[in-house]
Amino acid sequence: MKTAIGIDVGGTNVRCGLVDERGAVLARRSAPVGDDRTHRAVIDLTAQLVAQLVAEAKEQPTALGCGVPGIVDSDRGVVIRSPNFPDWEEVAIGAELTRVTGLAAVVDNDANQYALGEQRCGAGRGRSNLILLTLGTGIGGGIVLDGKILHGDCGFAGEVGHMVVEADGVDPGIGWPGDWEHYAASRGFATLAARLPEGPREAFVKRAGCAIDALTPERVAQLADAGNAQAVALWQEFGRYLGVGMASLINIFGVTTFVLGGGIARSWDRFVPAAREAIARHTYQQNVDRLVIEPAALGDDAGIIGSALEALDGS
Amino acid sequence: MKTAIGIDVGGTNVRCGLVDERGAVLARRSAPVGDDRTHRAVIDLTAQLVAQLVAEAKEQPTALGCGVPGIVDSDRGVVIRSPNFPDWEEVAIGAELTRVTGLAAVVDNDANQYALGEQRCGAGRGRSNLILLTLGTGIGGGIVLDGKILHGDCGFAGEVGHMVVEADGVDPGIGWPGDWEHYAASRGFATLAARLPEGPREAFVKRAGCAIDALTPERVAQLADAGNAQAVALWQEFGRYLGVGMASLINIFGVTTFVLGGGIARSWDRFVPAAREAIARHTYQQNVDRLVIEPAALGDDAGIIGSALEALDGS
Repeated sequence: MKTAIGIDVGGTNVRCGLVDERGAVLARRSAPVGDDRTHRAVIDLTAQLVAQLVAEAKEQPTALGCGVPGIVDSDRGVVIRSPNFPDWEEVAIGAELTRVTGLAAVVDNDANQYALGEQRCGAGRGRSNLILLTLGTGIGGGIVLDGKILHGDCGFAGEVGHMVVEADGVDPGIGWPGDWEHYAASRGFATLAARLPEGPREAFVKRAGCAIDALTPERVAQLADAGNAQAVALWQEFGRYLGVGMASLINIFGVTTFVLGGGIARSWDRFVPAAREAIARHTYQQNVDRLVIEPAALGDDAGIIGSALEALDGS
Repeated sequence: MKTAIGIDVGGTNVRCGLVDERGAVLARRSAPVGDDRTHRAVIDLTAQLVAQLVAEAKEQPTALGCGVPGIVDSDRGVVIRSPNFPDWEEVAIGAELTRVTGLAAVVDNDANQYALGEQRCGAGRGRSNLILLTLGTGIGGGIVLDGKILHGDCGFAGEVGHMVVEADGVDPGIGWPGDWEHYAASRGFATLAARLPEGPREAFVKRAGCAIDALTPERVAQLADAGNAQAVALWQEFGRYLGVGMASLINIFGVTTFVLGGGIARSWDRFVPAAREAIARHTYQQNVDRLVIEPAALGDDAGIIGSALEALDGS
């Protein structure tokens, strides 16, 4: 059976694995990204991990896949920009990885590869169409259609967090006014709390013990656990906004299978029911009847598996 | 060279054509839809037109394609619902057309086929990815990715008019609050005029000589021609909303080629500049640099050509 190396370059760790065609992870290596976040340093680190995996492999892997957060032109193997690695602009990571490992390399956006991993081996197994959303600081997206990752014209597909859900939305100070991820990602709690009426807002902020901008999903979840009504309502409003954007994606793609990943997904029961209600208001009943929303199943292995399988598809 | 019959079933007319593999229309037949709008009556009418085309064709056409407004499950050849033909619910149009014509039949949403026609032979020629928008009473959409129509799980793809652009949008009385087509289609002028401040609104309505709900793009264009400032501003606001939704589609698909059809597209210069400005505010500069917005080029032939080519793809 063919195998490939899968690599998930995160902001904190580089994870590598030896993966077979069925998506089974045969071996793993990982290491923290050091202080030197240049692509040279990260690629050297990655090359060491890959060399260890190759040395232990029974047979030579066929190819190598690598996921990076940000905008990636996978046709060219080039990282166009990455929020986690500010100096990686128009960097030919694919060619560099091939140079240091000797393996044919496929590079892609990390969420795209998570989506492929979940579709082939995780929560979306058995479905040919799937939308993966990672709910973190922003909303990452990976879209699989007919079993293949949607790439668009050159790597800018799946930037679903920049879908506009409030055309007259206020600029939060970082641009992109009205974007979905200002409401339905971590930063959404600040956006939504700021819209509370003055009295409840002040009471809530006092209870939270932090500035509105410093509100985290974890803190709001703690307050909701403690019975704070505003906190419960904020999670529901978060879910409503999540559902509004999901309904738009359903209407656009005709795809009704979603996999949700990222830390916030741990608070599932606080927001998924509200998301379902919003979806039902904004799409056809036939789509609601088919709707499947699942938590991501592969955890930290999603990127390793997805990147290796994408590499094997192309080999 | 292979040929196919292409059929465009509109709310007013049925258009049929004999089309070759290159998309050239070799012959045409059309007839108005009669008072009997049942699928039996419309299929009988269509069968007559097709029989005339087949009788005159030099060689037997290979297949038949048919476009219908509404939700179509093209895998099954079934019209699930159609705004123009209220009793066509779960009707197996494909099987019916095969029965009466003897030709293998492909049935699809009309805008999907317009998109394929424009991509292969019209304004999108030479591009593998394209989003077609028909701006009429609502916003129809057809999305071509890697040269193929996006269908989603079962016919509900491309319903882009139901993308939510105002999460807190007001229900206009027909459901679907906050949807894109309540702002950036014909009905958008009523939505946008209703939001004018009271004084200017009353003056504008008086000048228009009709109720707000009766405002048409044509009337607002006349008033703009006559130098009415509110009318000019309404067209710009229409363009801004159009651009907000287009930016979302760019961010989601990574696709930067748009073809605009429908009657409103005739007022191009009134709203496309405002749409471009809105797109620039809501997506990456690299996407703005690649942006192409073209008017549909095939006119009334788009459906005939697109449906025939889709049929030939499957034959």
